[in-house]
Amino acid sequence: MISLQEDLKDIRKLSRIITTIENRQKGYKDILRKCFYHSGKSKIIGITGPPGAGKSTLTSSLIGVLREEGSSVAVLAIDPSSSFSGGAILGDRIRMLDYSLDEKVYIRSAATRGAMGGLCVAASDIITVLDAAGFDYILVETVGVGQDEIDVVKETDTVLLVLVPGLGDDIQALKAGIMEIADIFVVNKSDREGSDNLVREIEYILSLTEHGKKWNTPIIKTVASKNEGIKELSIQIKKHFDFICSNSLILQKRKERFSLKFKRLVLEGLETKIKNGPLKGEEEEKLLESFIKKEQDPYTAAEEIVESFILEELQ
Amino acid sequence: MISLQEDLKDIRKLSRIITTIENRQKGYKDILRKCFYHSGKSKIIGITGPPGAGKSTLTSSLIGVLREEGSSVAVLAIDPSSSFSGGAILGDRIRMLDYSLDEKVYIRSAATRGAMGGLCVAASDIITVLDAAGFDYILVETVGVGQDEIDVVKETDTVLLVLVPGLGDDIQALKAGIMEIADIFVVNKSDREGSDNLVREIEYILSLTEHGKKWNTPIIKTVASKNEGIKELSIQIKKHFDFICSNSLILQKRKERFSLKFKRLVLEGLETKIKNGPLKGEEEEKLLESFIKKEQDPYTAAEEIVESFILEELQ
Repeated sequence: MISLQEDLKDIRKLSRIITTIENRQKGYKDILRKCFYHSGKSKIIGITGPPGAGKSTLTSSLIGVLREEGSSVAVLAIDPSSSFSGGAILGDRIRMLDYSLDEKVYIRSAATRGAMGGLCVAASDIITVLDAAGFDYILVETVGVGQDEIDVVKETDTVLLVLVPGLGDDIQALKAGIMEIADIFVVNKSDREGSDNLVREIEYILSLTEHGKKWNTPIIKTVASKNEGIKELSIQIKKHFDFICSNSLILQKRKERFSLKFKRLVLEGLETKIKNGPLKGEEEEKLLESFIKKEQDPYTAAEEIVESFILEELQ
Repeated sequence: MISLQEDLKDIRKLSRIITTIENRQKGYKDILRKCFYHSGKSKIIGITGPPGAGKSTLTSSLIGVLREEGSSVAVLAIDPSSSFSGGAILGDRIRMLDYSLDEKVYIRSAATRGAMGGLCVAASDIITVLDAAGFDYILVETVGVGQDEIDVVKETDTVLLVLVPGLGDDIQALKAGIMEIADIFVVNKSDREGSDNLVREIEYILSLTEHGKKWNTPIIKTVASKNEGIKELSIQIKKHFDFICSNSLILQKRKERFSLKFKRLVLEGLETKIKNGPLKGEEEEKLLESFIKKEQDPYTAAEEIVESFILEELQ
């Protein structure tokens, strides 16, 4: 295991390590433990927005600009693990083939859902591995639009919210909570009609919410397919990173990230404990029988179990 | 609270009760406990399939047929709680307006996601309430296509998998695990070209997996928008229900349902306990600081916490 650091530099080995993490295969925790101590150096950028906003193309162009200046880039594409296949994801990935021969670019998709109810631990762990692997930038791109994906980008250093003019609905259709997580607005496909309107709408909403904030959320117009505005976007990303480093914001963000990660890990552990625990075999059978016979209800029984989990004093 | 049974009969009060359950408002557990003891009489039908399969229209026609024979029907539409608004859901709901004056029909949407990581308890609880309200049929329709929705339909008595010819992909594009949960296949929009091919494809796949099974999964061709094939579908639904009642399958299904529900309730309880528990205030701050300083890693710390949860003997 002395070679883990070396293995992380080898794209093929890195891929295998991430698969181990994703599938919770034997030894995954040791890998994560080691990676954790080597993490904390990457700039982690979240890229989110509604379907059709051109997030993949934007990611692809952004890789280009970052590579030009010599930075290494990993992309983690969060796929909603749909039970029905969709065509878009594959298409998006194919576009990334441009970088398939570049050793300093690594692209990976990850499903967001866990087994029982979907505790999304894996994405956050993969970021830790990519960070330990020494990538200068980790771009976390959401393919889907679910809460899972939003939760993931919340754990990044800088969040890009990608919008496009003429998506039919106006900006007010965006669910509350989305506008607030954006550190940079990207108005993509800005050669389309309505882009100035969209910028004004965003400015208006920002004017309502921004007073007192130290960071003036920029709005960048891009045409990702023509690489327009991408350089400016990369400059703003760096500005934002400098901003959060210049105050305690980066520490605060990392604490929040660790806090979420830790709680998820605890829940994941408890989930495993419950699955392998007292709700198995004869005892579970007895319990389920009692529900069937209406001798007791699952709400009260679950409450009793939860109460029986005694939490010992920390340390 | 003597009037709960009465309240459940009043559509407007029922709506308010379900909102209480969904939002985990004060008193929700008492309501659920009471509902549990009055549940177990409804036939619960899951309706799932890829987007564009016409599930809503099918649900709407099915209500019509079931109402004609005097049955009362509740519909629970599981919406993926997207962070970006979509237009389709509203449109689907509007179609249901046909039944807005019928006291024996109740239609409700529910989001699938919980707070932290998305433990989907609410849908299963709403089914319990609708069951206690005395509806003969509860149709659980998935609007989205995520794992959440699949998990929900798994907890129904009879699962309809709705497919359509010419969705672009062939049936093999359906993710593994979906075919197996279907008790009845519905080939909707069967007046379209390719429907016979689709039926043959399903037959072929069934022939590979069905030997040894006692239930011969029927394939019903429908044109929901013209009410074609819906009567036949309702007959097959009843046949399947009779089938699972004639052997121990219904008990087995209910046990599984209770088992899943119970585990989710335990996890939900633990989640709350963790949120309000030792990971707050000063102690959490200390823990997070130690991660920041790399004095310890969250994986080991989470493991320790999980181990410190001591599960007392049941009973």
